[in-house]
Amino acid sequence: MSRTVFVNGDYLPEEQATVSIFDRGFLMADAVYEVVSVLNGKLLDFSGHMARLSRSLDALEMRNPMDAEAYLEAHHELIRLNEIEDGLIYLQVSRGNPGDRDFAYPAADVQPTVVMFTQAKPGLADAPAAKTGWKIVSIDDLRWGRRDIKTVQLLYPSMAKMAAKAQGVDDAWLVEDGMVTEGTSNNAYIVKDGVIVTRALSTDILHGITRAAVLRFAAEAQMKVEERSFSIAEAQAADEAFVTSASAFVMPVVEIDGQAVGGGRVGPVAQRLREIYIEESRKAAV
Amino acid sequence: MSRTVFVNGDYLPEEQATVSIFDRGFLMADAVYEVVSVLNGKLLDFSGHMARLSRSLDALEMRNPMDAEAYLEAHHELIRLNEIEDGLIYLQVSRGNPGDRDFAYPAADVQPTVVMFTQAKPGLADAPAAKTGWKIVSIDDLRWGRRDIKTVQLLYPSMAKMAAKAQGVDDAWLVEDGMVTEGTSNNAYIVKDGVIVTRALSTDILHGITRAAVLRFAAEAQMKVEERSFSIAEAQAADEAFVTSASAFVMPVVEIDGQAVGGGRVGPVAQRLREIYIEESRKAAV
Repeated sequence: MSRTVFVNGDYLPEEQATVSIFDRGFLMADAVYEVVSVLNGKLLDFSGHMARLSRSLDALEMRNPMDAEAYLEAHHELIRLNEIEDGLIYLQVSRGNPGDRDFAYPAADVQPTVVMFTQAKPGLADAPAAKTGWKIVSIDDLRWGRRDIKTVQLLYPSMAKMAAKAQGVDDAWLVEDGMVTEGTSNNAYIVKDGVIVTRALSTDILHGITRAAVLRFAAEAQMKVEERSFSIAEAQAADEAFVTSASAFVMPVVEIDGQAVGGGRVGPVAQRLREIYIEESRKAAV
Repeated sequence: MSRTVFVNGDYLPEEQATVSIFDRGFLMADAVYEVVSVLNGKLLDFSGHMARLSRSLDALEMRNPMDAEAYLEAHHELIRLNEIEDGLIYLQVSRGNPGDRDFAYPAADVQPTVVMFTQAKPGLADAPAAKTGWKIVSIDDLRWGRRDIKTVQLLYPSMAKMAAKAQGVDDAWLVEDGMVTEGTSNNAYIVKDGVIVTRALSTDILHGITRAAVLRFAAEAQMKVEERSFSIAEAQAADEAFVTSASAFVMPVVEIDGQAVGGGRVGPVAQRLREIYIEESRKAAV
């Protein structure tokens, strides 16, 4: 069945969903995005994603062409039209089509482009990988310096994902100046002696919506959290490792660069945080 | 008059030229490009641009969907259809439309997207700015680590261009670890005591086609060239400064961060190199 997607206010069959070749999202990667998870037809952490979308747009001096209410309505309409039980909704806002190519931003009256589409992921919350954990490899972090802005400049994460695939593993952790920044599309954590360690927020990493929720739940569960950088060697010697993202929730990591972490088995902290995150997110879903 | 543009083998009115919202060029900046200058209806340095396009595609393990002969034919057809005397031809190849979004590269049978369009620039070789020179400011280089691949990840150069504009100048030079890498869309040079200095080729900078030609002409004219990094302070103290690019050719720089270079006037080396480059390129144009 063909999906119905959203393009600038219209609901279209996916085969007819296009943007101009002059769209700055296509010519200059001048666009930001969000991915919201859907469980039982409801949106997880929706307001968090809307807040980050606004921050990304502000950082690029890009106008937000819709308000949160209109986005929510469009999300719900896409869920309805595509009969999504579990899955993802992708949302991208680009600076629009100025009719030609120029490095300078176009005039303020150029309308940003809004594109949204669904991805059905039946059983999203019960991913078998969560039981066995991911294997990951480390790779140099060559991305640009403003990773806090969620732009579509995803070529390097894409290359890193392919490098991981070539090595027969699930994902890559990116390393800069000897320290892990994050995964290709997720935040990275280790657990040692009961303490959860994850890199502090800065322009070096994405400010994960799931990261914020998980750290909040960890604090509520009286778990100790340290926000600081760690190396691959420290991660390999940790009791547990895991990643968080809007679509993987909390995903255990059981092997780093060929070395087992925590005996190569999913650890209790990651498992518990995953349960709490999914349970609490379901309750608050809209 | 509406332009006729090229999209995957078709010549279309620009208003009808679109790509799928699932094109990886739009969703992931998974695309490379070239810009070729046209003088008197003929293409400058065409084979150099084709060679670099191949290198960019190879670096991303992307298939080249057309051969150099087909690109040449399409360039000539666009020049003819749009009656271009002086101007630019923009060419972009993306990894195409796999029908959905995924960080992993799509299967090899997904056809890359090829988009080409013209920009008329009457009097391109006689830009008034070449007589007075550009003013530039310096700004931190926050781009990714593979600037030798000519990808559409142009958001930072775009931001830098806007920062320059906000300061009332023409362009920005990007600085990393205290040394100039290059301009927002051009290679950077200084001249001191008759020696032309420009950063050596590496993954830190674009391997400019115009850079290669200008250095060749400089050598033929018995000018001394040093390929090494330089700082903004060294540039400010130089006798001359200039940039090169496919569309600006050789463009003098007469002010850096508010300080005049070479008395704030266009210097003889930049002027001479510009003349030689335009003259020789015209002769070899196809």
